[in-house]
Amino acid sequence: MSSARLKGFEKLTDVDEAFSMFLKALKPKRLDSESVRIENAVGRVTAKNVIAPVDLPSFDRSAVDGYAVKAEDTLEASQFKPKTLKLIKKGTVKKGQTQRIWTGNIMPKGADSVTMLEYANIVKSQVQITVSVTPGENVSRKGEDIKKGKTAIAAATRLQPHHIGLLAASGLTHVDAVRKPKMAFLSTGNELVELGTKPKTNQIINSNRFFIEGLCRELGAEPLYLGIAKDDEGEIGEKILKGIDSSDLMITTGGTSVGVADLVPVVVDKLGKPGIVVHGLAMRPGMPTAAAILEGKPVFVLSGNPVAAFFGFEVLVRPTVLKLFGIGSEPRVFVRAQLTRRVAGALGRRVYVRVKAYLKGGNFHAEPVRAKGSALYSSLIRANGYVVIPENREGLEQGETVDVHLFSPIAS
Amino acid sequence: MSSARLKGFEKLTDVDEAFSMFLKALKPKRLDSESVRIENAVGRVTAKNVIAPVDLPSFDRSAVDGYAVKAEDTLEASQFKPKTLKLIKKGTVKKGQTQRIWTGNIMPKGADSVTMLEYANIVKSQVQITVSVTPGENVSRKGEDIKKGKTAIAAATRLQPHHIGLLAASGLTHVDAVRKPKMAFLSTGNELVELGTKPKTNQIINSNRFFIEGLCRELGAEPLYLGIAKDDEGEIGEKILKGIDSSDLMITTGGTSVGVADLVPVVVDKLGKPGIVVHGLAMRPGMPTAAAILEGKPVFVLSGNPVAAFFGFEVLVRPTVLKLFGIGSEPRVFVRAQLTRRVAGALGRRVYVRVKAYLKGGNFHAEPVRAKGSALYSSLIRANGYVVIPENREGLEQGETVDVHLFSPIAS
Repeated sequence: MSSARLKGFEKLTDVDEAFSMFLKALKPKRLDSESVRIENAVGRVTAKNVIAPVDLPSFDRSAVDGYAVKAEDTLEASQFKPKTLKLIKKGTVKKGQTQRIWTGNIMPKGADSVTMLEYANIVKSQVQITVSVTPGENVSRKGEDIKKGKTAIAAATRLQPHHIGLLAASGLTHVDAVRKPKMAFLSTGNELVELGTKPKTNQIINSNRFFIEGLCRELGAEPLYLGIAKDDEGEIGEKILKGIDSSDLMITTGGTSVGVADLVPVVVDKLGKPGIVVHGLAMRPGMPTAAAILEGKPVFVLSGNPVAAFFGFEVLVRPTVLKLFGIGSEPRVFVRAQLTRRVAGALGRRVYVRVKAYLKGGNFHAEPVRAKGSALYSSLIRANGYVVIPENREGLEQGETVDVHLFSPIAS
Repeated sequence: MSSARLKGFEKLTDVDEAFSMFLKALKPKRLDSESVRIENAVGRVTAKNVIAPVDLPSFDRSAVDGYAVKAEDTLEASQFKPKTLKLIKKGTVKKGQTQRIWTGNIMPKGADSVTMLEYANIVKSQVQITVSVTPGENVSRKGEDIKKGKTAIAAATRLQPHHIGLLAASGLTHVDAVRKPKMAFLSTGNELVELGTKPKTNQIINSNRFFIEGLCRELGAEPLYLGIAKDDEGEIGEKILKGIDSSDLMITTGGTSVGVADLVPVVVDKLGKPGIVVHGLAMRPGMPTAAAILEGKPVFVLSGNPVAAFFGFEVLVRPTVLKLFGIGSEPRVFVRAQLTRRVAGALGRRVYVRVKAYLKGGNFHAEPVRAKGSALYSSLIRANGYVVIPENREGLEQGETVDVHLFSPIAS
């Protein structure tokens, strides 16, 4: 270990530069696709454009309950001067005729529009129409929703319930989705024990396992837990190689700090080329994050501190996983809010401030969550988002308008 | 069927009033809880406060890599006038002594603070400290994250990965979660066929099944599909009773319009007391929505049109399901945006306008999605949220600031 490392990172890399350097070196490709039954496809990402196999609607149909008419027959109809049409039960609607029709029903031949029930009075076998309609009014045209042969859902779309509804309406039982990235995860640290073991003094439960697994699943990926490695070069190296072979992306936590615990980046760098691409980001928390490439696959070395790991995940892992899905970017929702008090930044570093955003008097406010250190789950629980202090700012002022990137909903 | 119904709803109920009337009649209770393994608990809702069983951290530990010291020994230390301390390997840190320590390590006896590696030089067995620290500096105190006996996670919290991390760190393998509401769902309509069947002319595939199932799962509920009922009073009634018996909440789609297709509300009202509580909401789309109570359980009669069903779900079903979880409210995230063009409202009705919110020049804009009728999935796919036009507004103006309630993320 060089004394430079012992003394701290000589040079920290700007966060955006770090990610773009890493992407350039990695050249990530979208993963293969697989055919997925639509009822299991919510949250999956389309591998290619879904082309509409049929027109939707597949026939001209009424958009309302009412009377199918020729629009010309309703010309100048009003409540005071209704037009009277002959009610027929079926067949072509001819001039002076009308047919009862319900929402969703196919339009009878001859009719080009529908007058709503509310604007019609039945008098024996005649219907008095009290409003004029224009041709096409209250009719859903064949192909009006989606035209056969057109793109119904674009590639790289994360499917939601309404997309599944459209697929079903189109008669599609399956959709080509990008397969779920397998994300291998290794915890390192002599102090760690598994949940279920009672920790002795100086030991802590490996909670990152559950946190990281949850973050992977939120992205639609499949976590693969590799267990805990002791702070031992051989053990760490062996498990990382095993993880890489059985996954698309590898994450470790712990052992990223400068010092004895710096083992993981050192081990990763020895395991292959190019090895470590970036180590030490100009950010807080999450500074000791490293990103490497081994066997062409991304390897992320995150802090053992949950909050630092979260932000390392946020700035490097999340956008990389999206590339494996073929998604350009999928930003967190953010709201504009007024900062309730000043927060200090750190010149030259991008600082991520956990805040609680709330609505008061019709405006969003962002209350910075007081937290000491980055090891505190409670700070994430009290917050619902984060604010970024740019590298060139000494801090953000009270009352300043900030963007809150939400990771939890805002309570009303 | 009364002629009043044939002629349209005599009286539409204000949306907020409808929901509050319904709640008052229903008096929903939180469902029972069950013990869930934490690795399966993301998205589940806590049934009660989770009380911290241990202090976190469970011991005073270093928040940095550095040297454990007595703060008083670093008084007035600076780069020009460092304080020199004796490096000891283990044991109590006495006046004039220091011990090497790594992030997360237990604090040695006698030390009350840690100086960071960057501010220390090793000279043989001595350490020159170049910065002063205050007592407690760079130390994570026992219980600083969460204190034993305090509420770690409040009741009615929807669990996210960081909550699971905290549960694990606390040694908890299980959490009491509200059981998943069972939501029975019946599609009605002679025109419907199941996916997998080729629809004949005038038939449509029952896509609502998949859409509604997805919406139920998004809320963390368990959908139970009851199939398609023909527009037949007996069949509909039988299936609804069956659905109610095997679920916590029942949804139907189709048959809500005024006319022949008004069957479902009529049937529901005959099945028991109090039956229909509200039918006909002053909203667009979704006007013919009905809400009923049978055997003490909520029954929602939604439109057969997917978009109308979506908004009926949004204003009545979603908030009711949240009550079954014990959640007061869980509003959709919304952003403030400028409307790109005027949209017409309807005096006396709350109008839900689908919009595409996007970011341009640092500000959010909301582009109303042009859509004819409410049967169009494509309008939901092109939109990422909706804007509400209040009952007392004829429309919203171009350039007006509006709240966009998001159902999909905003692309960057």
